Amino acid sequence: MTVATILPVSQFALPWTALTMTDCQEEGPGNATPMEVFEKLTAQGDKVRALKTEKADKADIDAAVQLLLKLKVDYKTLTGQDYKAGCPPSNSTPTQDNGPSVTEGEDMVDPWNVSTSSAKGVDYDKLIVRFGSSKIDQELVDRIERVTGQKPHQFLRRGIFFSHRDMHQILDAYENKKSFYLYTGRGPSSEAMHVGHLIPFIFTKWLQDVFDIPLVIQLTDDEKYLWKDLSLEECHRYAVENAKDIIACGFDVNKTFIFSDLDYMGMSPGFYRNVVKVQKHVTFNQVKGIFGFTDSDCIGKISFPAIQAAPSFSTSFPQIFNGRKDVQCLIPCAIDQDPYFRMTRDVAPRIGYPKPALLHSTFFPALQGAQTKMSASDPNSSIFLTDTAKQIKNKINKHAFSGGKDTIEEHRKYGGNAEVDVSFMYLTFFLEDDEQLEKIRKDYTSGALLTGELKKCLIETLQPMIMAHQERRKQVTEETVQQFMTPRRLDFNY
Amino acid sequence: MTVATILPVSQFALPWTALTMTDCQEEGPGNATPMEVFEKLTAQGDKVRALKTEKADKADIDAAVQLLLKLKVDYKTLTGQDYKAGCPPSNSTPTQDNGPSVTEGEDMVDPWNVSTSSAKGVDYDKLIVRFGSSKIDQELVDRIERVTGQKPHQFLRRGIFFSHRDMHQILDAYENKKSFYLYTGRGPSSEAMHVGHLIPFIFTKWLQDVFDIPLVIQLTDDEKYLWKDLSLEECHRYAVENAKDIIACGFDVNKTFIFSDLDYMGMSPGFYRNVVKVQKHVTFNQVKGIFGFTDSDCIGKISFPAIQAAPSFSTSFPQIFNGRKDVQCLIPCAIDQDPYFRMTRDVAPRIGYPKPALLHSTFFPALQGAQTKMSASDPNSSIFLTDTAKQIKNKINKHAFSGGKDTIEEHRKYGGNAEVDVSFMYLTFFLEDDEQLEKIRKDYTSGALLTGELKKCLIETLQPMIMAHQERRKQVTEETVQQFMTPRRLDFNY
Repeated sequence: MTVATILPVSQFALPWTALTMTDCQEEGPGNATPMEVFEKLTAQGDKVRALKTEKADKADIDAAVQLLLKLKVDYKTLTGQDYKAGCPPSNSTPTQDNGPSVTEGEDMVDPWNVSTSSAKGVDYDKLIVRFGSSKIDQELVDRIERVTGQKPHQFLRRGIFFSHRDMHQILDAYENKKSFYLYTGRGPSSEAMHVGHLIPFIFTKWLQDVFDIPLVIQLTDDEKYLWKDLSLEECHRYAVENAKDIIACGFDVNKTFIFSDLDYMGMSPGFYRNVVKVQKHVTFNQVKGIFGFTDSDCIGKISFPAIQAAPSFSTSFPQIFNGRKDVQCLIPCAIDQDPYFRMTRDVAPRIGYPKPALLHSTFFPALQGAQTKMSASDPNSSIFLTDTAKQIKNKINKHAFSGGKDTIEEHRKYGGNAEVDVSFMYLTFFLEDDEQLEKIRKDYTSGALLTGELKKCLIETLQPMIMAHQERRKQVTEETVQQFMTPRRLDFNY
Repeated sequence: MTVATILPVSQFALPWTALTMTDCQEEGPGNATPMEVFEKLTAQGDKVRALKTEKADKADIDAAVQLLLKLKVDYKTLTGQDYKAGCPPSNSTPTQDNGPSVTEGEDMVDPWNVSTSSAKGVDYDKLIVRFGSSKIDQELVDRIERVTGQKPHQFLRRGIFFSHRDMHQILDAYENKKSFYLYTGRGPSSEAMHVGHLIPFIFTKWLQDVFDIPLVIQLTDDEKYLWKDLSLEECHRYAVENAKDIIACGFDVNKTFIFSDLDYMGMSPGFYRNVVKVQKHVTFNQVKGIFGFTDSDCIGKISFPAIQAAPSFSTSFPQIFNGRKDVQCLIPCAIDQDPYFRMTRDVAPRIGYPKPALLHSTFFPALQGAQTKMSASDPNSSIFLTDTAKQIKNKINKHAFSGGKDTIEEHRKYGGNAEVDVSFMYLTFFLEDDEQLEKIRKDYTSGALLTGELKKCLIETLQPMIMAHQERRKQVTEETVQQFMTPRRLDFNY
């Protein structure tokens, strides 16, 4: 049995696409008993440790870890409980849930299934090790400050963009007057965008401002058509509506090209050529391994990764780069998009292009906590860009998971837990003042600041931010959208 | 072991693509002995006969036949011999050949592997039954004559276009003043085209003339890039070169649009949308079953069938059909292309489009005989459009397989066999005069006409035909090609 579910709407800010999730193995638990799976798991855990101790081949370790992860999924499916070494299964009845569910702990995060049982959210340091990316450390943040002469964005200062690939290479080149360009995107699955969807765009806007470089933004309306029960026309309409919210982030029309795949594929002499180049160099086996596709998936899904890969190459935009094929690309995105670009980086040298560099963000938590899912069908799971001031206030007061204590007395005595408090998490994203944020953290932790007061801070931060966004969005005319979405030369000489 | 080989160059006139060939089963002979496979084959043959006798479900019969075919391939692989019922394997050493090879006889033609052991060529009546298409019978030929008021083309009169799907529906609509359009194509794998490649174009030109309707011609340079070790630039150049030979067939520039996929995908608002629509409605399982793709194939090949399917829908050409989605398509092609269009016809109603109708041609035989392969790397396997008069003469005299007797005396006494004589076969394609052809057949069969004289007839038919083609091709300027290949309105009102 192959388990392959499509993330209905991810719990996190997925800029482009709802990835398929899979356990990446052919077999499910079958008829095994919980105890049999428990014993297999224990043995497999020993095997992984042994392989690591003897510094075995990376491929062998990876394979063993994959099997371990898979067994844990089986175990959870069978028992409804997370596997804990040394704790055999109890007799509680198994709970069925609708999708695969992966446990957190040592090596427990499946890259294609970024849920976690920890209220603090995913362990990103471990993710860096697993994905083989590099941590954005203080040294890199300092270097970005030196190179750009600008104070690093709060997303950098606070580790929200926490991981990268080849960012030093980008900076080396930049210092040698060699330009690069930015690429990010979004899968337009509905008109409703929430604040989490803004993260990559807010950061990309900052990067565009400080580096003064071209930016391309892909709207994968084709992908939404392939994955969802929507018509091409609906997906295209969502793309245009989402473009308005993206434009409202303040991008410079002279430096930014926004495109719908459905439109741009039929308007560009370069895009399809690069799609075909990538498609020639990636096998079904590879996308099966990376994305968990199965034989029952439509051929559109199977070949789609090439369409998200192609904008990583400057020849996909001949009107901007004048046919130059050596302009490197930097992709700011949430870490769940990395599989697409690991694939892209693998293909790039084989088709004569530079590998894209990446900046990865953490996931944006749902109001109910970092381990629950945000859902477009549940308006209370996040703050939407269309929410009124009152809705924002009510949602935060009612639904934002609190790290505070049950009573005021206890809270004053023991203090709150900022690490699991969603209001505090949201403030780390959106409150610009470092000192104020640190004061809130201290006061909340000490008990001086109550949950209601913390929530008030968040409400007062988000309300003007969302209202201002709505105001800017109102200013975005159809004509402006048309301008952004017209293939054209930007204000750069190539 | 999955056997999947790419037809290097088909033995036949493949208008678009070199299909992958496969035995359509997962298992190869493994460690079985020839005798074991022989016994399995005998049992399977009995099973197929039993199923047919009891009129079992078509699906069950098909599955049993597939396994039978597969066992025959295994048998041939193991023993180097064709399976013959009742003749157990001899002890001759097995010969390895490079591709799967399928035997001819009852149910022995794999639709994706159109080789045959019969010098007369494939049994097309059986192919019609297997493919579920309809025979072009005298009644249909007569009806085409009535409807068009024109004498049917020799390819119709002589059964070279022998099979169809929904041609009566096309004629019904045409009689009710409802228009349709023609679609055919070619996979531009090299500059060198041979006379066999002209068959679909000669016939399509006739159809265009007598029905006075738009024609679109697809050059699948993307597909050649995916299948061959060629660069995009080379494939595109071959497309343009091949377009010149196609134009030299005499198409009307006001009624014909020729397009390279690599170009047109980036120029049309409709083509990619239809590609994605088809890609959403076809699974990997389906293309695996139809085309024999495997998990090791690149995702470009896997999704390519949608690109050959899309031009079957009028919305792929908004500039010609003004956005109308109900203009039916008629596809003249060699029968080996039918799998693409069976897939297309399956998808069409699910995406709201009319099914394309088809006219299927037989295969064009190699000079060496109907059971051997034409190869672009063997210039002697066919007459190329670039051959000189002298080369044509020499090739036919030296290489055209003869149905004549070994000595003049024997020939005079017993007569020749026109059915296996390649020169005679070529004349059935290219000699327009029915009476003259019939006289040649009679005289050759009686022995009155010697092989040398028959070959002289063919030489005298082909030389002026090829020379005239070369003359017309010389007149085709880059500008003319540009005209044909520019997306534009044609001389029809939609």
